[in-house]
Amino acid sequence: MTEPTNRRIVLAARPEGEPTPDHFRRESAPLPEPGPGQILIQIHWLSLDPYMRGRMSAAKSYAKPVGIGEVMEGGTVGEVVVSNHPVYASGDFVLSHSGWQEYAVADGDSVRKLDPNFAPVSTALGVLGMPGMTAYTGLLNIGQPKSGETVVVAAAAGPVGSLVGQIAKIKGCHVVGLAGGLEKCAYLLNELGFDAAIDHRASDMPERLAEACPRGVDVYFENVGGAVWNAVFPLLNDFARVPVCGLVAHYNDTTLPPGPDRTPLLMRAVLSKRLTLRGFIVRDFASQADEFRREVGTWLESGQIKYREDVVEGLEHAPEAFIGMLKGRNLGKTLVRIGQN
Amino acid sequence: MTEPTNRRIVLAARPEGEPTPDHFRRESAPLPEPGPGQILIQIHWLSLDPYMRGRMSAAKSYAKPVGIGEVMEGGTVGEVVVSNHPVYASGDFVLSHSGWQEYAVADGDSVRKLDPNFAPVSTALGVLGMPGMTAYTGLLNIGQPKSGETVVVAAAAGPVGSLVGQIAKIKGCHVVGLAGGLEKCAYLLNELGFDAAIDHRASDMPERLAEACPRGVDVYFENVGGAVWNAVFPLLNDFARVPVCGLVAHYNDTTLPPGPDRTPLLMRAVLSKRLTLRGFIVRDFASQADEFRREVGTWLESGQIKYREDVVEGLEHAPEAFIGMLKGRNLGKTLVRIGQN
Repeated sequence: MTEPTNRRIVLAARPEGEPTPDHFRRESAPLPEPGPGQILIQIHWLSLDPYMRGRMSAAKSYAKPVGIGEVMEGGTVGEVVVSNHPVYASGDFVLSHSGWQEYAVADGDSVRKLDPNFAPVSTALGVLGMPGMTAYTGLLNIGQPKSGETVVVAAAAGPVGSLVGQIAKIKGCHVVGLAGGLEKCAYLLNELGFDAAIDHRASDMPERLAEACPRGVDVYFENVGGAVWNAVFPLLNDFARVPVCGLVAHYNDTTLPPGPDRTPLLMRAVLSKRLTLRGFIVRDFASQADEFRREVGTWLESGQIKYREDVVEGLEHAPEAFIGMLKGRNLGKTLVRIGQN
Repeated sequence: MTEPTNRRIVLAARPEGEPTPDHFRRESAPLPEPGPGQILIQIHWLSLDPYMRGRMSAAKSYAKPVGIGEVMEGGTVGEVVVSNHPVYASGDFVLSHSGWQEYAVADGDSVRKLDPNFAPVSTALGVLGMPGMTAYTGLLNIGQPKSGETVVVAAAAGPVGSLVGQIAKIKGCHVVGLAGGLEKCAYLLNELGFDAAIDHRASDMPERLAEACPRGVDVYFENVGGAVWNAVFPLLNDFARVPVCGLVAHYNDTTLPPGPDRTPLLMRAVLSKRLTLRGFIVRDFASQADEFRREVGTWLESGQIKYREDVVEGLEHAPEAFIGMLKGRNLGKTLVRIGQN
């Protein structure tokens, strides 16, 4: 009989440009043992998110990078199998940040217990988790959408963008989403109730976007950059707000675009249109977590908010799923289901 | 005996790049006659401000351009010589927006009466006027300086920058000013109490700026752009605020700088450092005018705020004074004294 092992995926090398499967390595390790106050978690769900591309790089950012040979970072939902902490019992579901592996030990004080009766536990990684809260806090605190205004969001079929658009609809806005391909655009229009959906790959995307925004753009929730930003920029109205949440179109960049340097154009527009550009990450609004879960939970219950999950089976498929997500292959929240098949 | 005439300066041509005296033309016109509810003003003081460069261009902005052959726009302080309005009497001093001329008619309801006992009437164009309110509202509403933070301001010997720095000192900040030349830098250090002053023309300006900001930059009051922005940008701290008030280094640009396009660098910094860039013009905060005059008036009276005026004698010298101001030749608020010599 063999010892129980913990399969996991570590960072093998730092990518220059697009990550490939070679930047990841599968490993087996002994099952970790929980110490005092700790719990052993069997992970059921691993969240894959664009920010992980940043953690693969050594470049200075708001968080320290994953080390070479270290387990890839990531949000997880799992089941407690051993508990040395009074709050948790075997069988409890918890949200933790345990990374790309099957089992993990965590301090009981660092995890959050989930109620499977409130919502499916996987939603703690999506619509009721970090992506949902990113959408909620960035849109409401920085975007400040007002009824009748036009809100544009890219990657709109993803977990952040889809919630940005739906909350903007609840707030009475004219909502325009960009997404890759007809299937995603149909989802935005038919299931999520967006007012317009534009395929960001269409050669006439800038013209279509302008047509879809006849009164200009008051809020642009920036999570991609690149061509979409260039198309939105001339449409921004006076006093427009741009919450800057992500720049996935640039995460694999190794060089800057060719000149001229358009920075002065941007600054002149900031001045003459009195734009607000403000970057944020979700933990900047950590104090709003309860309010977020309460309000979005209510919208979910009432059916005003919908969500989709794009589930990949098996930890071994996490690298390709992650690479695909950076290319926009997912529709909805990308999750890896671990050890359930 | 000749009719009394009104000498004035009109826009003769739109500049491409730097304005020259040829873009202006002197004219004489009959003295205008005030209608019902109007007053005739003899102008004593004309304010020269960088925004006027924008009004000389036909490019879309937050205000409409001055037409060819029209009197150049500008803030003015003058004396009422004829009044058809119950509030004003001959000899009253008023603030108006009458432009580059000796006399003007204005609706009584469109001007503001000045009290020469409260402060010299010329201050209504400077420290207690539009430039002062620009500094006050932009710094406090957008910059939000906190005690112990580092505030950097360029064009710091000018009417806006000098007030930004002095208010930041009152708020307990470490204040670093950039200005052109030793005389201006000495003024910042010795008269205005800045913590550091840097000659923006020095070849090692970026290194000196970094040395003067050992804890990075929390607020950069942007009123120049160009090389100063490039030097400040890498020093910005997480959560830094950048009120964008002017870009005088770019007002005469006819082309964009050579590549690569650095826009993605800016957007990445906005994201990873969670910067706030927000453009404004003073009238966006019009509701704070009374509060501004009351608070800055108190600081002036107590000697906590100082100001300088750079006075040019004679309307005919306004074009060269304006051109010189765009090049930073002024120390303090540029004013033209009209008809007093």
